[in-house]
Order: sequence, then C-alpha cells, then structure tokens
Amino acid sequence: MITLDEARAMIAVARAKGREMGLNPLSVVVLDAGGHPLAFEREDGASPGRFEIARGKAYGAVMLGMPGSVQKARAEEQPFFMGAVNGAFGGRLVPVPGGVLVLQDGVVVGAVGVTGDTSDKDAAVAVAGIEAAGFEARA
Amino acid sequence: MITLDEARAMIAVARAKGREMGLNPLSVVVLDAGGHPLAFEREDGASPGRFEIARGKAYGAVMLGMPGSVQKARAEEQPFFMGAVNGAFGGRLVPVPGGVLVLQDGVVVGAVGVTGDTSDKDAAVAVAGIEAAGFEARA
Amino acid sequence: MITLDEARAMIAVARAKGREMGLNPLSVVVLDAGGHPLAFEREDGASPGRFEIARGKAYGAVMLGMPGSVQKARAEEQPFFMGAVNGAFGGRLVPVPGGVLVLQDGVVVGAVGVTGDTSDKDAAVAVAGIEAAGFEARA
Amino acid sequence: MITLDEARAMIAVARAKGREMGLNPLSVVVLDAGGHPLAFEREDGASPGRFEIARGKAYGAVMLGMPGSVQKARAEEQPFFMGAVNGAFGGRLVPVPGGVLVLQDGVVVGAVGVTGDTSDKDAAVAVAGIEAAGFEARA
Repeated sequence: MITLDEARAMIAVARAKGREMGLNPLSVVVLDAGGHPLAFEREDGASPGRFEIARGKAYGAVMLGMPGSVQKARAEEQPFFMGAVNGAFGGRLVPVPGGVLVLQDGVVVGAVGVTGDTSDKDAAVAVAGIEAAGFEARA
Repeated sequence: MITLDEARAMIAVARAKGREMGLNPLSVVVLDAGGHPLAFEREDGASPGRFEIARGKAYGAVMLGMPGSVQKARAEEQPFFMGAVNGAFGGRLVPVPGGVLVLQDGVVVGAVGVTGDTSDKDAAVAVAGIEAAGFEARA
Repeated sequence: MITLDEARAMIAVARAKGREMGLNPLSVVVLDAGGHPLAFEREDGASPGRFEIARGKAYGAVMLGMPGSVQKARAEEQPFFMGAVNGAFGGRLVPVPGGVLVLQDGVVVGAVGVTGDTSDKDAAVAVAGIEAAGFEARA
Repeated sequence: MITLDEARAMIAVARAKGREMGLNPLSVVVLDAGGHPLAFEREDGASPGRFEIARGKAYGAVMLGMPGSVQKARAEEQPFFMGAVNGAFGGRLVPVPGGVLVLQDGVVVGAVGVTGDTSDKDAAVAVAGIEAAGFEARA
C-alpha cells in the first residue's frame, strides 16, 4: 500500500529530478493498486490537459500490470490489440513510457504517471520518485 | 491564476483544519479557472472514489460559476433542472457544499473540492485553505 | 433556413436586450434545424460552462419540437418521462425556458438557447432576438 | 484572457481572409484557456458537423499546449500515442493544422479552430485573425 505521505514524496522527488535534468514543466500522478488517484501535481506552465495524460499512463500500467514501455512495445507489435484493450477501458489508457509500476515485496501497489517532456525522461523521473520513497519501480 | 505552490498551500491548510476539527479522512482537489486539476491529495483511509467526488464538486462550481451551496439550493428547488444541467456536462457535477469558488480581485480563478466528512464541514475546510493562500472563497 | 447573418443578428439583439434589462452576462447559441451550432457568443464574466447549457436548452427545443417552457411543464408533470427522453439524447437536453424555437412560415428552422439570468428572462431576450431577425419565436 | 470582443474580431478577420483567399465556407471557434467556447460562427454552405471539428482542433491545441501542426507531426510519428491521448479526452481532439494557439505575453490564453478548406489554409486564416486582434499565434 502507498500512503499519502509516500505518494507526496514520490511526486516531490520526481519533480526535483525534473528540475535537475532541466525538463519541461511536469505533471505527476500517483495511483493506488485499484488505479485511483492518491495525489497529483501539475507544475506551472504545463498545459491544462496534463492530468488526463498522466493518469492515462499510470492507469494503463496498473490495470494491465504492464509498465508504459511494455505497453508501447505491444502497441507497436499489435496495434489492433492495444487499441481494443484501450477501448475496453473507455479509451483512458495512454500506453507509452512514463507510466511506471510501483512494487512492494514484488507486488504491484500502484503506479506513477508523468507527462511533460519526452516519454523516456518522464519515465526516468517517475522511477527516481518511486525508488526514493523506498519502493521498486518497473518502467 | 492559482500557482501550484498556492494550490498546495490550500490543500495543506484544508487538511490541517480537518485534523483540527477531528474530521474523517479528506480528499482535496484544486482546479484552475477552466475546471482542470492543478493538485490533489487523498488522505489515508479515504475510499478510492474520492477523486471523482472532490472533482465533481469543484468542477460544477467552476463551470456554472456557482458554489456548491447554491447548486444544492437550486437542485432542491428544481431537481430536474440540476439533473439536466449535470447531464449536459456528462454527469460530472456533484452539486453539494464542498465545491468552493476561488476568487482573486473578484474574478473566479478556480475552485477547491473537498469530500470526506459532512458537506458543510467539507466546505468549511475548503474555505480555510483558500483564505490562508490569500484568495477569496465563495462557498 | 437561418443564415449566419440572421443568426448573428439574433445574438446581437438578444445581447442588447439583456443589457437594456440589466441582466447578468449572457451566453447565446443559435442552432439550425438539425440541432447543430450556427453561431455562439459568451459575454465577459459568464462562467465557462455556459456553451453546454445554452446548447442544451436549444438542442432539446429543436430535437423534441418543444420550447423550453413546454419541456419544463412536461418535466414537472412526468419527471421520469423527460429524464428518459434526455437519456436517449445522451443527457444533452436542458429542459427549461431559454430554449426557444425559431419558425419561418410555421416551420421550425432552428432554435435559440440563452443562459445567464433567470430562465424566464433568458427566454425573453431569445424571443426579442428571433423576432428582430424576422422570424417567429415559440418560447 | 481573450474578451468576447477580441474573439469576435478574430472570427471576423479569419472569415474576411478566407473570402479574400477564395476559400470554401469556413467555421471558426475561439476557445478560452480552459478549452471552453467563447464564440463560434459557421458560414452558409458549411456542413452541419463543423462545430465539432473546429472545436476539436482548438481543444487539442489548448489541452495539450500543442498547435495542430505539432499534433499532426506527432500523430504521423506515433499514431498509437496520439490515438490514445485522444481517447483520454473522450475522442474530442482533431490533431491537424487549423488548431492554433493564442498567446499573450508568451502565455497560452486560448485557441482558434478553423475548418472548411485544406488544413493549412484553415490554419493561415486562424493566424490572420489572431494577429489582427493583437495576440501572438502558434500554428
């Protein structure tokens, strides 16, 4: 289980890492094991739709048990499959890097979704936040 | 405009006020002037659907320019009207106290939505957070 | 058929009438005979969700061939009926005064939807706009 | 912030530019910084679905902070990404040129969406309207 304090720590570190790397304004969401929001922050200057994108990345990771990079690979291999799966979730998944699973003792307890810079950099800051809070990340 | 730091200050004060008042675990969202999330926190022990409720309260306030108490009064007077208006927004509004407008120089710049305890107490902590951040609240 | 120039004239007169009557900031939409937008204006100071409400009023009028006042009476008499009808249109109808049919030689050619003040005043300015443009209004 | 008078000026100039260039009947929407309609006009002879297309172009620009040309390039590079992002917004985005960001002092304050002719010409008239109203355009 991710507590709110842990979720906030993940966001704080992810954002600090983004500043350190000189990234664009980031938006970061932490979802619980059921795909529901625990905490979210959108940095000044980010566009207004960033919550939906951050959540879409993390939501797909939790609901499918697949981090964004795996979803992306699958989408490239079998576009119709990921499209259909997405439809089954009302189109809410955003299957690209930046949706990172959060594990504790090998069990998925949630996911972090980051958007704002390139997908790979989004994923890197998510991993930094998750690990700093004492969890295992799967990007 | 509400900055992320101001949004986080609103949430911090609203949550502190909730603890001071001995309220149930709270969930607090801050939306911008277009109804889009800036920041959200869900306290430990709150049920997983709280983001949607907090957002629904704040979203209706922003989109209609009416705080939750006014929406509720209107819903009691003309249930079919508020039901229909809600439908026009895809059913996303939650027209009860706890959706509080944030004003700056008399202009609506966003809204805070709180859920977890009774609607009136939810509204009270939202007001506390908004005022502590230097804005005017309309509950 | 309503031309764009006629639609703009309806909006201009409705807005002027609103100022003359000292009403709140208004939002006015003109829909064609198929319920699709021809023109829309939202006055400064109106809340951001006003397009959906204005359209909902006019859309119900066109799609059911019933002005807002008739829809409202029906909703009060038979709430389940109007609720179900609204569901059949994806919840997009707002069945209150302010949705006014536009007729030409006795045939419905569109509708005007106004929102911002009380429903009856909204309807009054819609009628003023429609008649000034040389059409018959049914409110 | 874009006032209604400024929005109407953008539409007037965009339409005049379209006539000057001999374009097909145009439909032009102006959205605020939250993606909500301020003003819309559909020229005589345009097909009835044009509001949704104009809004979809402008809505994606605002919500993602990316003008239509950037969205299109991204959609060509990573079709599954833009498809998924679109799903996260309920399928409302139309990621092609003609969705043009409106900036004031370097900050996005809204977007103009134009549809009716080729996407590049749609974008050109949007830019003309935005600049004539004293704003910066990003197409």
